[in-house]
Amino acid sequence: EEEEEEQLRRRFMAPPVSGLRELRRRRRELRSRMELLIMETQAEVCRALAAVDPGAAFAVDTWERKEGGISCVLQDGEVFEKAGVNVSVVFGQLSEEAARQMRSRGKSLKASEDGKLPFCAMGVSSVIHPKNPHVPTMHFNYRYFEIEEADGTKQWWFGGGTDLTPTYLNEEDAVHFHKTLKEACDKHDLKLYPKYKKWCDDYFFIKHRGERRGIGGIFFDDVDSPSKEEVFQFVQSCAKAIVPCYIPIVKKHCHDSFTPEEKLWQQLRRGRYVEFNLVYDRGTKFGLLTPGSRIESILMSLPLTARWEYMHTPPESSREAEILEVLRNPKDWVH
Amino acid sequence: EEEEEEQLRRRFMAPPVSGLRELRRRRRELRSRMELLIMETQAEVCRALAAVDPGAAFAVDTWERKEGGISCVLQDGEVFEKAGVNVSVVFGQLSEEAARQMRSRGKSLKASEDGKLPFCAMGVSSVIHPKNPHVPTMHFNYRYFEIEEADGTKQWWFGGGTDLTPTYLNEEDAVHFHKTLKEACDKHDLKLYPKYKKWCDDYFFIKHRGERRGIGGIFFDDVDSPSKEEVFQFVQSCAKAIVPCYIPIVKKHCHDSFTPEEKLWQQLRRGRYVEFNLVYDRGTKFGLLTPGSRIESILMSLPLTARWEYMHTPPESSREAEILEVLRNPKDWVH
Repeated sequence: EEEEEEQLRRRFMAPPVSGLRELRRRRRELRSRMELLIMETQAEVCRALAAVDPGAAFAVDTWERKEGGISCVLQDGEVFEKAGVNVSVVFGQLSEEAARQMRSRGKSLKASEDGKLPFCAMGVSSVIHPKNPHVPTMHFNYRYFEIEEADGTKQWWFGGGTDLTPTYLNEEDAVHFHKTLKEACDKHDLKLYPKYKKWCDDYFFIKHRGERRGIGGIFFDDVDSPSKEEVFQFVQSCAKAIVPCYIPIVKKHCHDSFTPEEKLWQQLRRGRYVEFNLVYDRGTKFGLLTPGSRIESILMSLPLTARWEYMHTPPESSREAEILEVLRNPKDWVH
Repeated sequence: EEEEEEQLRRRFMAPPVSGLRELRRRRRELRSRMELLIMETQAEVCRALAAVDPGAAFAVDTWERKEGGISCVLQDGEVFEKAGVNVSVVFGQLSEEAARQMRSRGKSLKASEDGKLPFCAMGVSSVIHPKNPHVPTMHFNYRYFEIEEADGTKQWWFGGGTDLTPTYLNEEDAVHFHKTLKEACDKHDLKLYPKYKKWCDDYFFIKHRGERRGIGGIFFDDVDSPSKEEVFQFVQSCAKAIVPCYIPIVKKHCHDSFTPEEKLWQQLRRGRYVEFNLVYDRGTKFGLLTPGSRIESILMSLPLTARWEYMHTPPESSREAEILEVLRNPKDWVH
């Protein structure tokens, strides 16, 4: 047993928030299995990134053990400008504001007389901004939520997704990315990919620009059927698909040559990324409004640098106009 | 008369939205006088900026005459990285969302049976981001709002302010800036400066960072007393104070030498500027949510470039820590 613990310890980026012994003790519980999954995903992605970036060194910060998280951030590597992979495990009482937001999303939450709603939330999230404008930005997030109502019944759900934000369109990459996600979904239910692909296009919409943040992927929230076990298995498949989705694209393009004009267009697209995250992203907004949340981990998603030019419009039929067209009218990449 | 019109035409950056003839016809009405004031302010500030920046060339865009605006934007000058001075004059029916927001601020608005609330809003607003980190960013905005209720009574109010965002603290500049504003306020009522100085410190608060955007200035909203004439005179004094507040500081520092580290700190502070504007600024949020608003004019306030580094903390007793201290605990610069 100790050997097994030691193996896990070496595999993860840091000791898990709940402690290895505790996780072993309640290893059959879904929340322990989910915590192990998010720890594994963090380590797997960090290793895959480090393997393609010789200049990469992750800073690993563990914040507030018992209830807290582990942030792994790489800045100014050779391949990656800024890459963060963040795990958080939070227990506590739901704030009234948070409960209200959840109810407005259709959840019926029966609080006890003192208004208390014990909850547990955990997830892994990541944004990876490469240097080369021919390597796309990638984001993923997989999370699990549990709330205990006054009568002791537990509500639970999963949410998550993986999506790609290229500076320039490469159809082959788009197809590879979506196909890999579709395969992960199809193992569980053929209806999932089309549903979650559309959800992703709808969610990452920068309304004031009339464009999406990127070329999508999958996105889902509040998923609590068919069963806890089956949804967990699905989330596990999605998590395992992250590296095969993205790393081949990084390897293919990280040595592509690029012009200063292409770098500038990347910086303008980074500006749009900031606009989406600060104005619309539910997770970011929720985090910024939650007292005591760790701002540096939430805003880790922002790029190292971004640019805003007044009235920038790419010329017709340019490669810049080509990606804009796809951001305005999302395409089906796999059938 | 025609000569007078011709003189005004030459003085402004573009013909006013309501037309010179129309403005002359109803010249005694406050909204005509306000429209002339915002046009004058725009021209005055643009000329003052052009006079200190030999590389400056303003792009002047007039959008949607009758109801629209005039945007003057300078990008990549020698002194200024990005400077925008924007006039907008909008008439129409208040959207339900906008009416609800105003009511939540304590306004009682009696709509007619069909729910219509005719309104008129006009203002001048500007953000000036210089290149040199020793020249602070400056923002101002002066606006007038009128709503006609179902029974024909008109509600009106003024809002506005001028505030400074330095990368490094220069006490002499801070005192000059606040003193010039205080003098403009004191001509009207000695209570105004202390009240609006505090309002400014409270408004430009980046809650999730626990810091203010800059070292303040003045800010006010919903001001409708003692009388329309007196508030207009006060707003006029504030508008006239913009150039004397700011231009001496630009002249003093625009040839200061600076290090790459100082430029980097400026870029990080620009990131905070973006955070405030996209997450908290009422005007920006209102604009982004208003269908049909001109996004490029609203987001003109964003800097040309910005930067986010994970866990950046300046060393104790550094000049970077010095400004942070003042942003966390605002000071009184004049008594």
